[in-house]
Amino acid sequence: MSESEFDILILGGGPGGYATALYARNFGLTVGLVEQEKPGGTCLLRGCIPAKQWLQVAEVFTTVRNAQDFGVMSSPPELDWTAALARKDRVVNQLVTGLSGLLRRRGVQVFSGRGKIAGAGRVDVEGGEKLSGRAVVLATGSHARSIPGWEIDGERIVTSDHAVDWSSRPDRVAIIGGGVIGCEFASLLVDVGAQVHVFELEKQLIPGGDTDASRQLMRQLSRRGVEFYLKTGVAPAEITSDGVRVSFRNKSIEVDVALVAVGRGPNTEGVGLETVRAEVDRGFVKADLETMETAEPGLFAVGDIVAGTPQLAHAAFAEGIAAATYIATGESAPVDYRVIPRVTYTHPEVAEVGITAAEAKEQGMEVEITKHPFGGVGRALIIGQSQGMVKVVAEKDGPLVGASVVGPQAGEMIHELMYAVGWEALPDEAAAFIHAHPTLSEAVGETLLSATGRSLH
Amino acid sequence: MSESEFDILILGGGPGGYATALYARNFGLTVGLVEQEKPGGTCLLRGCIPAKQWLQVAEVFTTVRNAQDFGVMSSPPELDWTAALARKDRVVNQLVTGLSGLLRRRGVQVFSGRGKIAGAGRVDVEGGEKLSGRAVVLATGSHARSIPGWEIDGERIVTSDHAVDWSSRPDRVAIIGGGVIGCEFASLLVDVGAQVHVFELEKQLIPGGDTDASRQLMRQLSRRGVEFYLKTGVAPAEITSDGVRVSFRNKSIEVDVALVAVGRGPNTEGVGLETVRAEVDRGFVKADLETMETAEPGLFAVGDIVAGTPQLAHAAFAEGIAAATYIATGESAPVDYRVIPRVTYTHPEVAEVGITAAEAKEQGMEVEITKHPFGGVGRALIIGQSQGMVKVVAEKDGPLVGASVVGPQAGEMIHELMYAVGWEALPDEAAAFIHAHPTLSEAVGETLLSATGRSLH
Repeated sequence: MSESEFDILILGGGPGGYATALYARNFGLTVGLVEQEKPGGTCLLRGCIPAKQWLQVAEVFTTVRNAQDFGVMSSPPELDWTAALARKDRVVNQLVTGLSGLLRRRGVQVFSGRGKIAGAGRVDVEGGEKLSGRAVVLATGSHARSIPGWEIDGERIVTSDHAVDWSSRPDRVAIIGGGVIGCEFASLLVDVGAQVHVFELEKQLIPGGDTDASRQLMRQLSRRGVEFYLKTGVAPAEITSDGVRVSFRNKSIEVDVALVAVGRGPNTEGVGLETVRAEVDRGFVKADLETMETAEPGLFAVGDIVAGTPQLAHAAFAEGIAAATYIATGESAPVDYRVIPRVTYTHPEVAEVGITAAEAKEQGMEVEITKHPFGGVGRALIIGQSQGMVKVVAEKDGPLVGASVVGPQAGEMIHELMYAVGWEALPDEAAAFIHAHPTLSEAVGETLLSATGRSLH
Repeated sequence: MSESEFDILILGGGPGGYATALYARNFGLTVGLVEQEKPGGTCLLRGCIPAKQWLQVAEVFTTVRNAQDFGVMSSPPELDWTAALARKDRVVNQLVTGLSGLLRRRGVQVFSGRGKIAGAGRVDVEGGEKLSGRAVVLATGSHARSIPGWEIDGERIVTSDHAVDWSSRPDRVAIIGGGVIGCEFASLLVDVGAQVHVFELEKQLIPGGDTDASRQLMRQLSRRGVEFYLKTGVAPAEITSDGVRVSFRNKSIEVDVALVAVGRGPNTEGVGLETVRAEVDRGFVKADLETMETAEPGLFAVGDIVAGTPQLAHAAFAEGIAAATYIATGESAPVDYRVIPRVTYTHPEVAEVGITAAEAKEQGMEVEITKHPFGGVGRALIIGQSQGMVKVVAEKDGPLVGASVVGPQAGEMIHELMYAVGWEALPDEAAAFIHAHPTLSEAVGETLLSATGRSLH
């Protein structure tokens, strides 16, 4: 074995790649990881983390603006965008540094450069080493897509890649796409005073998500001033002297910048897939979801490039764990895709797990739906965020199969429902434990109690 | 049956009483409830809810003070105590109104006045009706205790009853007792600029709780300026012209006001217990914890008066549900006391469930302890609250038996651990689901993964 042959060789240092690397070290495997940027991937460098930092800036801004409701007096807030951007960079750098240190301490050998598969078990680093691995894991991630007529120039027409690094707040923004990313930017931009227009082809925000949750989110964002255009496609963009003209139906609006948030495509071009037998479906790599192995024996795929699995950082973590476990032990430890939580970090947050009522019905399941609003929950009133609801879906006379939460801390609260759905608890079983008073999670407790047919509050 | 005979007659309209009443209505039982104040009890009128509202005021104050860290610029905050107090009253009134409406809509007949048991199955309302019930539920709650030499005058020496209604911020405060209530007031007072001294006889804050969690809380409060005196008793109070002199060991300090927070005694004097056969232990009512029935057949006890069960509003809810279910159906539905979460709403919050490592060892259990700090958790860095940790305790080669969380939103996050402990999950089983990224709850996920012997981050 040459010095540059590894037990696992990973192409890509985002959540899928670094989780595979770190987890593989639990088994004592030698691990090489090839990454052209700093480690962290889209999620850390220009995705989840920067976006959530901006959302937190917006939340602090809102808290200061409304502080007098709590008797806390200060001048109306002003956003120092440069300082906020600097904080975003600081947090990202801190996490990058932490991750780099962790990889080093755990003994993962990191190669800087663009890597490319060069046949089974081999990865070439551009202008550098030729590496090989008993197993190779492809974790090259994804990129923001656009639509015809909307060429991304990084100035007038941008994606989230650029928006997380805006040097000042745009005043008028059109967001093309009302999915998770579009809604998150709409929420943070309107909260810091921008005019925001959101265009979505489907009939609801966060298509595929729970309709009640989506409607509740839209109601709250609308009330704060976001203009929504559902079931509305847009004509090709028109760059004007001042910005961008967005035309739709018989109307048009002019904005300073348009943020295209229409989904993410897999980074599988130019990575050498043609040198191996892996199968590709519309750019996504097909993998056996029991093991994450592709059609090329010894070649695995994890993260956003995998066909048919959710493009979420934590799904990539789970796939990395599954791949590393199988490579190390030969035993499959598949991801339980039924119960991967999905969170939109808007204000209010929207979090879901399991299947929606609509999906259950499509599967021919007879369901019982139970909802409880945050309105009567003490802590929600205390913090002044009593809009929203918890909704659980159970099979009739059967277990819980899905849940959604719209409201403060929904992204945290969804995890207890993840266990309930994951363990296929009956409403009676899940309702058997009492929630701490006064917490927001009591909304979950009340919903579960109501789902048993006997409510408390 | 006379008009004033009920299926269930409840004495006391706090969490234990009103939960019994509301839940009993699920079974169609007729319910009478006797309460001398507005419904809501200590929890709503002068306990959990007001205290948490003040803690929220402190949190908003802190957020405004630190807003510039996020690029949000405003003047240094000033606390308008009167406005904050008004908000507290508003929230309490809103919840009282909501609860009154709920009782009315659900058909619970409320009698205003001081009630007293008058023999088996009978309750007299002072200066009013004589009621009877097939079952009678005693839910008279508790009151703040004091210690010898510390006579509560409501001005210089107070309990939480008074502190939630202070008309201005005291500058110098001694808190006698470092339990949950003492710590909560210490946290909120120091955050709005008071000098705070906390005296605790035991060697840790929140006696009985996890030692690491307690130490972490003390470290963070100390850093913000709270002076702690552990293993320290106080001599009788000395009222001075300016305030109160607190003497301990060979020293003394002078403060404006002393808050006595040494626990709560049961309200079982003068409620007519001598007219029935219920057994009392140091003031607490003994109940069969399978059914909540006392030694007097048909007389039940729930909430803070029950001997040997935790004095928590949600424990009272659970006991009310248990009592109502047994009375209605004859089948016992006992409270699972193993998994009642315990939350201290300080900044940071401390939340626990199950047994501590120390308790496990006392029970002769061999345990595995796993901890994970919030320091590397993305969302904790994003919100600027990355102190604290998650700790889980598992039986060696066995299930999870307890957990504690110290950090932001700990009181929400504890609930997923409640399920894991309640369902006696093995670490492997609990770690099988992946947490949403980036959430605070990932700290729980990382801890559970580490507890399997294989860590991720």
